[in-house]
Amino acid sequence: MFKKVCIIGCGLIGSSLARAIKKNGLSSKIVSSNRSDSVNKKVIELKIVDDSSPDTKKMADGSDLIIIATPLSSYESVILKIKDSLKNGTILTDVGSVKENVISLVEKAVPENVSWISSHPIAGTEESGPDAGFSELFQNRWCILTPSKKAKEKDVKLLETFWKKIGSKVDIMDAKQHDYILSITSHMPHLIAYNIVNTSINIQDEKESSIVKYSAGGLRDFTRIAASNPIMWRDVFIQNKKNTSEMIDKFIENLEGLKKAIENEDGKKLEEIFTKTQKIRKEIIEAGQDVRKPDFGRK
Amino acid sequence: MFKKVCIIGCGLIGSSLARAIKKNGLSSKIVSSNRSDSVNKKVIELKIVDDSSPDTKKMADGSDLIIIATPLSSYESVILKIKDSLKNGTILTDVGSVKENVISLVEKAVPENVSWISSHPIAGTEESGPDAGFSELFQNRWCILTPSKKAKEKDVKLLETFWKKIGSKVDIMDAKQHDYILSITSHMPHLIAYNIVNTSINIQDEKESSIVKYSAGGLRDFTRIAASNPIMWRDVFIQNKKNTSEMIDKFIENLEGLKKAIENEDGKKLEEIFTKTQKIRKEIIEAGQDVRKPDFGRK
Repeated sequence: MFKKVCIIGCGLIGSSLARAIKKNGLSSKIVSSNRSDSVNKKVIELKIVDDSSPDTKKMADGSDLIIIATPLSSYESVILKIKDSLKNGTILTDVGSVKENVISLVEKAVPENVSWISSHPIAGTEESGPDAGFSELFQNRWCILTPSKKAKEKDVKLLETFWKKIGSKVDIMDAKQHDYILSITSHMPHLIAYNIVNTSINIQDEKESSIVKYSAGGLRDFTRIAASNPIMWRDVFIQNKKNTSEMIDKFIENLEGLKKAIENEDGKKLEEIFTKTQKIRKEIIEAGQDVRKPDFGRK
Repeated sequence: MFKKVCIIGCGLIGSSLARAIKKNGLSSKIVSSNRSDSVNKKVIELKIVDDSSPDTKKMADGSDLIIIATPLSSYESVILKIKDSLKNGTILTDVGSVKENVISLVEKAVPENVSWISSHPIAGTEESGPDAGFSELFQNRWCILTPSKKAKEKDVKLLETFWKKIGSKVDIMDAKQHDYILSITSHMPHLIAYNIVNTSINIQDEKESSIVKYSAGGLRDFTRIAASNPIMWRDVFIQNKKNTSEMIDKFIENLEGLKKAIENEDGKKLEEIFTKTQKIRKEIIEAGQDVRKPDFGRK
């Protein structure tokens, strides 16, 4: 499919992509570039790339497909390093969770003959780093493409085929819509998980109560999400701050409503809301976006 | 261990207890009482009890151990039905998630010769009803005992042994402390899950955005918890309203702090909080309160 693919940043997503490309034979050569020498060593050791070096320009040189898989705050420096060595017709993509700001940032920097098509695979785990990746990460998950004005139609098709070959379902969406929807389905849940775990830790520190011991009552699920990559999420919230702020306000407004219902012992209202939320779980399982096993099947 | 055990309310927890008692041979006879005829039929069909009927007084009659496993709001009517037929030396327990109010309610109603020892197994799944139960539900989970003034020491020991025989670890705690800690580790996470899923549904209804489709980005974990039994949770929040209100206020205060940090692009502060929350996950897994598999092992 490609002659040379370069992945910039081999964390959970980047290294999973390298594995998936290799497994599905989608490129004659796969290289990567990482700031850290230990990561460059590791990905060669793991045999998931053919070459890897901190010299991003050198690694990117001559690639048909370049995938930026670094935290959002590194995009600017990555683009500066590679923009003058992009070959004619290269497809440039990323895997970031926020689109509007970065799309225009990259669009301004890269030459006309490069197809800049942003990607967002809605996939991940709470683990980070090249060891955490696996080739099936993208299977049955959605990947959203947000092509820039500089993207050629045939390249969008090609990138779509690429994601499908590694198991994803593909949607095309504009950046504004993407950032809004993802703030609901992904950014806000992460922020809330971080906040409830942080609130619990603060109380534990104050009162020396044991939150770990009794966490199976519900908290443990939130700690999984709140164990996600801190740098990645720091960047996501800052890059999507307008939507995030709006969602926080809506969330607090609804939470105040629940608080009032509890204080007034308004059982009818509580039951109504809790019955409504029960239904959506069924829809998610039917849509193949989660497993049906109760308690995620853990025992 | 017992001659006759009576379980009042065979939902997820009650039916799991029946199964665990049978499997471990802890009683010569197990009976249950349920308001619904279909549940009484079902538990006999499933062969998890020897007899079952809506006549609670009749079922409870002559039991050594009576377990109330109904929603908290039914305790008063249950106690009224059984209080005059409790035999000398009976152990009366429950499995409710809130303690302070119900302990004194039951304490006032039952005779002196009954050992009233409240239990709270920190175990459950998002499913409800007698079909959802399984005998291993309590394995490696904590069970908190909060004995009333009317409890005999030897009966507390016996009930402790009972929970240990079905796989639980047992802690003894006073009701006030129980309700406070559980409001952090269990009640608040459930309320927050209900609130984020409800907020998402409201936005979806307004904007017709597809939250189910992209829920693998984080929201799906919350929908699991927000699929828990609406009646049970309605009662929990109302019964524990003082602690719940306090936790909501702390949660909102911290969330406003995060919002401010995001708006000010204070990456340092965000990173600091997100790094702190990452650590607690490790502690929970080390304490055996969750599985180590990333993403709960779902694929």
